[in-house]
Amino acid sequence: MSEEFLSHCRHIVGEPFVLVAAADMAPFLDDWRGRYTGKALAVLRPADTEQVAQLVKACAHWRIPLVPQGGRTGLVLGSVPDESGTAVVLSLSRMNRVRSIDAVNRTMTVDAGCILQHVQDAAALHDCLYPLSLASEGSCTVGGNLSTNAGGTAVLRYGNARELCLGLEVVTPQGEVWNGLRGLRKDNTGYDLRDLFIGAEGTLGVITAAVLKLHPLPKASATALVALATPRDALDLLTLAQDRCGACLTAFELMSDVCLDLVATHFPDLPKPFSRPHGQYVLLELSSCESGEHASGMLEQAVAVALDRGVARDAVVAMSAAQSRGLWDLREHISMAQAKAGKNIKHDISLPISRIARFIAATDAKLRDAFPGVVLVTFGHLGDGNLHYNVAPPAGVAHDEFLRNQEAVNRIVHDQVDSFGGSISAEHGIGALKRDELNRYKSPVELGMMRAIKAALDPLGIMNPGKVL
Amino acid sequence: MSEEFLSHCRHIVGEPFVLVAAADMAPFLDDWRGRYTGKALAVLRPADTEQVAQLVKACAHWRIPLVPQGGRTGLVLGSVPDESGTAVVLSLSRMNRVRSIDAVNRTMTVDAGCILQHVQDAAALHDCLYPLSLASEGSCTVGGNLSTNAGGTAVLRYGNARELCLGLEVVTPQGEVWNGLRGLRKDNTGYDLRDLFIGAEGTLGVITAAVLKLHPLPKASATALVALATPRDALDLLTLAQDRCGACLTAFELMSDVCLDLVATHFPDLPKPFSRPHGQYVLLELSSCESGEHASGMLEQAVAVALDRGVARDAVVAMSAAQSRGLWDLREHISMAQAKAGKNIKHDISLPISRIARFIAATDAKLRDAFPGVVLVTFGHLGDGNLHYNVAPPAGVAHDEFLRNQEAVNRIVHDQVDSFGGSISAEHGIGALKRDELNRYKSPVELGMMRAIKAALDPLGIMNPGKVL
Repeated sequence: MSEEFLSHCRHIVGEPFVLVAAADMAPFLDDWRGRYTGKALAVLRPADTEQVAQLVKACAHWRIPLVPQGGRTGLVLGSVPDESGTAVVLSLSRMNRVRSIDAVNRTMTVDAGCILQHVQDAAALHDCLYPLSLASEGSCTVGGNLSTNAGGTAVLRYGNARELCLGLEVVTPQGEVWNGLRGLRKDNTGYDLRDLFIGAEGTLGVITAAVLKLHPLPKASATALVALATPRDALDLLTLAQDRCGACLTAFELMSDVCLDLVATHFPDLPKPFSRPHGQYVLLELSSCESGEHASGMLEQAVAVALDRGVARDAVVAMSAAQSRGLWDLREHISMAQAKAGKNIKHDISLPISRIARFIAATDAKLRDAFPGVVLVTFGHLGDGNLHYNVAPPAGVAHDEFLRNQEAVNRIVHDQVDSFGGSISAEHGIGALKRDELNRYKSPVELGMMRAIKAALDPLGIMNPGKVL
Repeated sequence: MSEEFLSHCRHIVGEPFVLVAAADMAPFLDDWRGRYTGKALAVLRPADTEQVAQLVKACAHWRIPLVPQGGRTGLVLGSVPDESGTAVVLSLSRMNRVRSIDAVNRTMTVDAGCILQHVQDAAALHDCLYPLSLASEGSCTVGGNLSTNAGGTAVLRYGNARELCLGLEVVTPQGEVWNGLRGLRKDNTGYDLRDLFIGAEGTLGVITAAVLKLHPLPKASATALVALATPRDALDLLTLAQDRCGACLTAFELMSDVCLDLVATHFPDLPKPFSRPHGQYVLLELSSCESGEHASGMLEQAVAVALDRGVARDAVVAMSAAQSRGLWDLREHISMAQAKAGKNIKHDISLPISRIARFIAATDAKLRDAFPGVVLVTFGHLGDGNLHYNVAPPAGVAHDEFLRNQEAVNRIVHDQVDSFGGSISAEHGIGALKRDELNRYKSPVELGMMRAIKAALDPLGIMNPGKVL
């Protein structure tokens, strides 16, 4: 049976694009973090939407589950198959064409397999900005960005991947092509299918193309690192910066002394902006559509007012692009410094912004109670309410030993998130990794509606089974 | 049977809130435009979400269709019952409480029956802006705004109602309460049910409350009316203004000589900004989070560059709030001037912005061909690609006589919209009025998915039947 299916697939995409040898399939089966490897019946590599449609029709006919895959940079096992070996991987990596750019409409129509960085570059050639920006932008694809509703560092100003998409092309679980590639800012003609497929992690259909929303390219930006005593002060600084700078505020990233110490230990060549510790730090970036003077003038004034009011304790304003890069390096090396320090227990959570300071205080206390000496490496996109709340072992405790507490640590952190009205997955999604957590924290009413929609659109259950639901 | 049902309803909400007398029901049955009156078994007026849930359970038990209703200001017969008299109207007007405001999180949680203007006012008391702004803001409600994904004059900067909502509370067609009142900027935990209910026009459930997204209140704004030769020039001005002013650009409204002449005829006291006709006009507004000088300086520079490059032919920059009000009055009196001039055939359409000039030229020509002497009253939110494309009779032709051509005119306009990749309903929705048009222009694949979702969530078909689908 499966030979018949594979032979039909070869007929559709051509012999070289149906991979079945273990060595050929291996690069498509590994989890990005290297902690898991799945098995597959085959890896299928279609060249265009029509081939995707025919492949999905074949999967429906033979009842073969399929796992859509983009750049495979997800962190929750959403784009790799399980260990049964019964599913096929549908890789969209060959579909990487920018179909068109419309600079007046500020839209760009691209294949789902386009790499994010190529999209950013193509937009810039037309003096436009595609603002989505992630650590994995050199490898991740538009289809994956949309299927997981990716976040990143520009959400505060421009929104998540969801807000940056105007239309989709999707192959349904029946193998039909839905052409929803509309480049419209306003369209109230029926149910919002676009947003249903965005963030569905490939469980409702295969996104094959998208119309992306572009923005004017800012003329200049200005960066500062502001030292504060507490997360509560950081919230005051956020309100102050938003009131004064409005949409010019493009980044607001929180990090603690623990984070900067880690970076200083593992990357001693990076700048050390302050001579003594202050507690917390905010990396603040403004962008201006007018000029560099406008951006830096506004930033200096905002920082001066924050110092004057006692919200900030000290501040460093970057005087050059290189200095700005240096400040961003501190922020962006936290994860790498953590990796060098050894394994820890990570949480990608979000909270109502106003509750973040209380959440950190209360959750830190609970963890210190349960695990005396535990090290809390907390940083993140404070302007979006998104924390990377990571828990490292006490000094002297082996990392692997500490990781045995993962379940207990998750329970404390996620119970706290739940009681503060937050989300257990802010930007990474659910995949296979957080499915049990989803079942624990979502209401039965919400899970019931999700299951009803899944059954209605994918009655055979062939689309990325075992993910999300 | 219906007596048993009504008696149960009285038990739930109390005798005074189950209206059955014709005179009591009348104010809930008229279409806003006064062109249609429906019939109902009763009008139900619940006090809170729990009562809504019990009423919907009763409707499901007795198989009584229900029509959720907010301020009843919709223009497509979405919130009034049909003429069968078998449905109940579920009015949310008693549920008008602002539940809470969180100025640091910039969110506000409100009952669905809150009037839009009250929400705007409550936000302003906390130095925040709820940007949604519509002609009917004194009557329309949050629930209606969200169920129809309302647009208005601030979409260019702040988005539609959809982009201004972070969470919902919904009573499902089974009478269960979904508490999705999350105030989070990032949350990737499962399917996007929020956006599915937004814009569903009450056919999938009853929105009973929402978490609305607030913005910092701008410090000042500046307004200009710019005269141009053609819609093509208006597109050039849009690109220029977006590049120079970025997110400070908060309105970009197009209108033609025909529009200003109509206003001058019927409202002779309003200002006449230009001594001679130019063809087209753009009302351009900037807002600044910094100062009035910043807003007006940026505006004056943008206008100067537009004049210098020959994009603009002339311009009036408002030097006071009163002058700004006068310019907005011109824009806002077009619909009223049209009403005084007599009936016309209206279209609420959107297009890719880059195609608008070609669309107007081609569609004007087709209509003039089919109906020599026809008068085209075209204006709208150009920055959103949204045109109010209205067709009035040739001089000397009676309005009622001309309206007999409605079907033929709609066919020309909507066929053109379809061939230019536009939408036949930009902000008003589908309701009962445009259902046939939806069936004509949506693809069978898209309609099929919509019907599958409707059947999955509302298998008894009791939620606002005959609307949208």
